[in-house]
Amino acid sequence: MSDDQRYGLGRHIVLPGPLRLDGGGMLAPVEIAYETYGTLAPDGGNAVLICHALTMDQFVASPHPRTGKPGWWTAMVGPGRPIDTDRMFVVCANVLGSCMGSSGPATIDPATAREYAMAFPVITIRDMVRAQAMLLDHLGVARLAAVVGGSMGGMQALSWAATFPDRVAAAVVIASAARHSAQNIAFHEVGRQAVMADPRWNNGDYYNGEVPAAGLAVARMAAHITYLSEAGLTEKFGRRLQARDAKSFGFDADFQVESYLRHQGLSFVDRFDANSYLYITRAMDYFDLAEEHGGLLANAFRASRARFCLVSFDTDWLYPTRESRAIVHALNAAGAPVSFMELSSPYGHDAFLLDSPELYRVVAGFLGAGA
Amino acid sequence: MSDDQRYGLGRHIVLPGPLRLDGGGMLAPVEIAYETYGTLAPDGGNAVLICHALTMDQFVASPHPRTGKPGWWTAMVGPGRPIDTDRMFVVCANVLGSCMGSSGPATIDPATAREYAMAFPVITIRDMVRAQAMLLDHLGVARLAAVVGGSMGGMQALSWAATFPDRVAAAVVIASAARHSAQNIAFHEVGRQAVMADPRWNNGDYYNGEVPAAGLAVARMAAHITYLSEAGLTEKFGRRLQARDAKSFGFDADFQVESYLRHQGLSFVDRFDANSYLYITRAMDYFDLAEEHGGLLANAFRASRARFCLVSFDTDWLYPTRESRAIVHALNAAGAPVSFMELSSPYGHDAFLLDSPELYRVVAGFLGAGA
Repeated sequence: MSDDQRYGLGRHIVLPGPLRLDGGGMLAPVEIAYETYGTLAPDGGNAVLICHALTMDQFVASPHPRTGKPGWWTAMVGPGRPIDTDRMFVVCANVLGSCMGSSGPATIDPATAREYAMAFPVITIRDMVRAQAMLLDHLGVARLAAVVGGSMGGMQALSWAATFPDRVAAAVVIASAARHSAQNIAFHEVGRQAVMADPRWNNGDYYNGEVPAAGLAVARMAAHITYLSEAGLTEKFGRRLQARDAKSFGFDADFQVESYLRHQGLSFVDRFDANSYLYITRAMDYFDLAEEHGGLLANAFRASRARFCLVSFDTDWLYPTRESRAIVHALNAAGAPVSFMELSSPYGHDAFLLDSPELYRVVAGFLGAGA
Repeated sequence: MSDDQRYGLGRHIVLPGPLRLDGGGMLAPVEIAYETYGTLAPDGGNAVLICHALTMDQFVASPHPRTGKPGWWTAMVGPGRPIDTDRMFVVCANVLGSCMGSSGPATIDPATAREYAMAFPVITIRDMVRAQAMLLDHLGVARLAAVVGGSMGGMQALSWAATFPDRVAAAVVIASAARHSAQNIAFHEVGRQAVMADPRWNNGDYYNGEVPAAGLAVARMAAHITYLSEAGLTEKFGRRLQARDAKSFGFDADFQVESYLRHQGLSFVDRFDANSYLYITRAMDYFDLAEEHGGLLANAFRASRARFCLVSFDTDWLYPTRESRAIVHALNAAGAPVSFMELSSPYGHDAFLLDSPELYRVVAGFLGAGA
């Protein structure tokens, strides 16, 4: 990936840093690719930060400049939307470690003039949040009216409230968790092993050759199953065959669900960097907000002055409702105001990105109540 | 794998065949590796067939001759056990398509004097059952007092009752299903893609070179997660680290669950053939007993004269209780006698192979009631 391509992706800033990382190292400079929507109010009181999930990007409410696809959350963020860009100043930054213009393994290491690859430091969710804080400093945003995110975005929203308690007035945490479970880690480890088993991965040094597409596609396929519910898969595909007539008695994609998964794997490879996949899944696996605060989750929120809104989906088995409940209990114990809603959906974890009028109402109501 | 090694694995027979397969082809000869325990009664009325799961073998109640490990179900099958080899004549055969001595992709194709590899025909659960029937003919077993199996073994038990209704007096179906769901197929497809993504797989032609160990290990890791419950993984591993001190901030196996999964993947490669993994998972995905009988599961059992015993485990999300219930409903509709029990276990699908006094009691009681 050439610099032109990376820097052609919308807004981009190079901050001198250094950013001190949880792993002990320093990152300098710190590149951040981001988008903004709306106008910052003179009193700076209308800023909302959207935090994206594992493989998403900064184009939350505008078309991706390379693919032309619409923003990934246009029903939630935009003029007249629950997060109303006519009223709010919305910021969304590509997370540290990713591959859409922010510093990550595909970034050129100034010390070597080559891609960092596996020399990029292992980062945490809190490191991502600290980088976002540097961006907000640059943009003149002292305090967030709200920080909003689903899945890994929800982890960042929680980390924001814990790490910068004076800078967050409200946090919306959707389909997320305060820590990764053994099963979450296990699925991520399968994905990482799939990438690293691909000879083209070459210890991460593939930027001037062929990318480990086969391994990354397998990783994505395994992850994708966890984003969907069993019932949703049955409803969408069941045992329907690709060809109407009969089974092939071979190893082509006979079932529609096989073909769908293969497509998910292959199309992912075109848009995501394999090393970034390793680094970001690692950051998620390392996430344990209680551990960062003496082992008690409530401690993470004692200094917070934010209102919280937690949302889960009943068929989400990746970050099931009990994970959100554990956060609500901790917030209660810390005396933080919190509203919590479990929504019904057949679509599993993916529900947070799909059209959900109930979710829009919950978020609009919560944010409106604080206005 | 040389012939000597294969034929050194306990009892082994070469039947002339041909075996007519569901896919339309013929298999000849048909090699079957098997073990027997106990003595066939003069009236032939005490034969029990044990059907094994995806990666198991014929050594259900005796040590594996190569590894020296004890049989995989010695608490269930043996002298004085629920399936009592002092009273019953127990047969267990390696399934068609496998790699423990029965005909499979690693078998030498007499037409070419080379391993079949991907020229081996795609088989079905019913084909496995038909091969077992040929073995029973050879052993002089006209009718089974019982056919017993868990997971894929349960599919075979169901297929036995449907395919040979006059030859089965009782069927025990544990932690199984009458068809593979979209999610089941999806996980298997990930495993197959992981194997086929490994360049060493080489379109299945690897028997004279290096095996696709990396791909097969990833496949096993993904599958292994589905054998365990989320709660079981949390109880066994939680977020405990390998090193007591701290995270490595690298990509080694930091968490115990990662190390465990890697071990599961690597040790599997030593004992299983990658092509067999493709063929057997395909047979499971193709399994849909209703589809074989006009789309109505009850039709599969209309000619059956067997008593049925169904057992599920409450934390099994691979073949959840509702799959067993669907079978029970179909058996009721067909007027077949059936007893059904959902057992409680923290161990997910794996529970059927783990020490379970309740399971032993259920099976002993069911088989004893028919004696």
